[in-house]
Amino acid sequence: MQQNQVSRVTHHRLEEETALRAARYTGEGRIEVGEAEPRTPAADEVTIRVAYNGICGTDLHIVQGHMDARVAMPAVIGHEMSGVVEQVGAEVTGLATGAPVTVMPLRWCGECASCLAGHQHICQRLDFVGIDSPGALQELWTVPASLVVPLPAGLSLQHAALVEPLAVAVHDVRRSRLREGETAVVIGGGPIGQLIAVVARATGAAVILAEPDAERRAFAAAQGATVVDPIAEDLAGIVEAQTAGAGADVVFEVAGTRGTALDATRHARTRGRVVFVAIHPEPVPVDLHRIFWRELEVLGARVYEREDFERAVALLAEDAVPADALITRVVQLDETQTAFDALLSAAAMKILVDVQGADEQGAER
Amino acid sequence: MQQNQVSRVTHHRLEEETALRAARYTGEGRIEVGEAEPRTPAADEVTIRVAYNGICGTDLHIVQGHMDARVAMPAVIGHEMSGVVEQVGAEVTGLATGAPVTVMPLRWCGECASCLAGHQHICQRLDFVGIDSPGALQELWTVPASLVVPLPAGLSLQHAALVEPLAVAVHDVRRSRLREGETAVVIGGGPIGQLIAVVARATGAAVILAEPDAERRAFAAAQGATVVDPIAEDLAGIVEAQTAGAGADVVFEVAGTRGTALDATRHARTRGRVVFVAIHPEPVPVDLHRIFWRELEVLGARVYEREDFERAVALLAEDAVPADALITRVVQLDETQTAFDALLSAAAMKILVDVQGADEQGAER
Ligand SMILES: [Zn+2]
Ligand SMILES: [Zn+2]
Ligand SMILES: [Zn+2]
Ligand SMILES: [Zn+2]
Repeated sequence: MQQNQVSRVTHHRLEEETALRAARYTGEGRIEVGEAEPRTPAADEVTIRVAYNGICGTDLHIVQGHMDARVAMPAVIGHEMSGVVEQVGAEVTGLATGAPVTVMPLRWCGECASCLAGHQHICQRLDFVGIDSPGALQELWTVPASLVVPLPAGLSLQHAALVEPLAVAVHDVRRSRLREGETAVVIGGGPIGQLIAVVARATGAAVILAEPDAERRAFAAAQGATVVDPIAEDLAGIVEAQTAGAGADVVFEVAGTRGTALDATRHARTRGRVVFVAIHPEPVPVDLHRIFWRELEVLGARVYEREDFERAVALLAEDAVPADALITRVVQLDETQTAFDALLSAAAMKILVDVQGADEQGAER
Repeated sequence: MQQNQVSRVTHHRLEEETALRAARYTGEGRIEVGEAEPRTPAADEVTIRVAYNGICGTDLHIVQGHMDARVAMPAVIGHEMSGVVEQVGAEVTGLATGAPVTVMPLRWCGECASCLAGHQHICQRLDFVGIDSPGALQELWTVPASLVVPLPAGLSLQHAALVEPLAVAVHDVRRSRLREGETAVVIGGGPIGQLIAVVARATGAAVILAEPDAERRAFAAAQGATVVDPIAEDLAGIVEAQTAGAGADVVFEVAGTRGTALDATRHARTRGRVVFVAIHPEPVPVDLHRIFWRELEVLGARVYEREDFERAVALLAEDAVPADALITRVVQLDETQTAFDALLSAAAMKILVDVQGADEQGAER
């Protein structure tokens, strides 16, 4: 496959491109596909021929107009990607044309209090590439070389488009300090909840996943989780029974409702950890009495650090992640709008955009 | 002083007592002082001649009727005490008649999941002595020897009545992992807030204490805290200015209002720690977005462990705590009701009950 990619990349040299395309969010729910404006890499940059781009919940928020104040339209979005190095800047070392790569889409200032404290991934002036600056829904994408993460030869580029969301899950689990032999409760079985369950299982923990949708429960059960329908069953009772009355070591709240936020603390053992993964834009009621009574620890977790990205690559490469099952569908760049509409109307797991039309040509997988 | 105590203790031998007294909560705001029913110590018990008993917020809640479902009336309450060993059970070692002591008022089951995990102080069947079983507002108090904490010879028995609330503050600060050179924000300048500020200062941290009451601010300022009136001043701006824009390393929310609970997370730096010390019986809105955005850590802290008690004793013994200033008033056992009324109507710091009438006789201090 690597050979295949290299020859295709060689075929499209940057200066020869004529009608390179990009998908752009232009406001009010619209995605328009038009001509791209590729950029020759500066000395410390790399141009990547984007293979696949996954669509995530944040992209949905953008296209629904929730983030119009932050996104400069028309905006090329997209930050869950895989591709092949097309061209490297003069000072870039360690990355060669043809190398399969992904991008950790965070640019930090290096000067704020967060950066100086070593927490660059949550820089106070963070540029989330694909939201705050142009993203991967374009055929050629130029980014700083420092953001590029090499991929091992055996990893398919479709699977590699899952590295970014998987790195979120890896970071959530790392923040929770979940260990082998512990029990984790995951509330919510959407893509991030499933990935957290997968990482927790790979860590050697028992997983209890609560999700009202039967298909999503079946997905988690196939990955070795104990699944609970929180509407029909008594989650608290099941957690208690499975932990000899102690409660779970870690609870991940991924569903993001007021009810689940309030309930999450209830399932944790004495000194247990609770990670609120889902984003609550507005303050919601939290059971501070339970946090006090059981001396719980609530941990915020945001994006990922380089080591999370690298563990995500390794987990995908060693087939610890049900990548094929997670990828519900692959659409062409021209169909990006369709993909968003589908995600808004149905409970798909992950839809990838085939940016180069590789699948149409049958060149990949 | 030690000599003095020993001779007084010898004078009142247990079997010689005739009219020993106890203060009892009898419901509906009433405290009645009547005859005590002293109990000869069992083999593993110790009988203590109680010297002083401090009245705390929990006692106020009891007397206001908020905890009638938990407290078996008529109830001898009180759990912040000092005294002298009167008699020891047959199997008790290391404690002799005449020794000055305090009591860590926690009895655990040793069998529940919390106990088995090593967190006995938050046992799932915890007996908080003085709430769930008889307390120290009586002349002679018999408790398990394992609860008794010896006091050093130089520590006055009035000061030693502060060990328990100080141990709460020591535990809160220890849970926060506050280190020398860090900055702590303390929201609320009541007794526990002041003690947290004192422990934080003793740990080598800078303290910013927010409190609307001018007298309480003056108290904290005298202990080396930067004080802020959160009504008239911009606490967030002051914290930012004092931390070069980073935010505080640790925030202690001790005021216990909905506003301060919501605001507490705002003052913490990236990866900062927030301890909700005040008790919120009902869930209140918490800024989960801020916890996510800055990867904060929220820590529950409840009562104390033996090492907290011992550090509290050491801090008092080395005069690191403004004990005399904290003790607003000492009343006689007969006046216990008055003390509760005073605490309910005014902002006193700490009122002690002189259980033996030592101050009347001028025998102490
Ligand atoms: Zn994403
Ligand atoms: Zn920064
Ligand atoms: Zn107390
Ligand atoms: Zn127990």
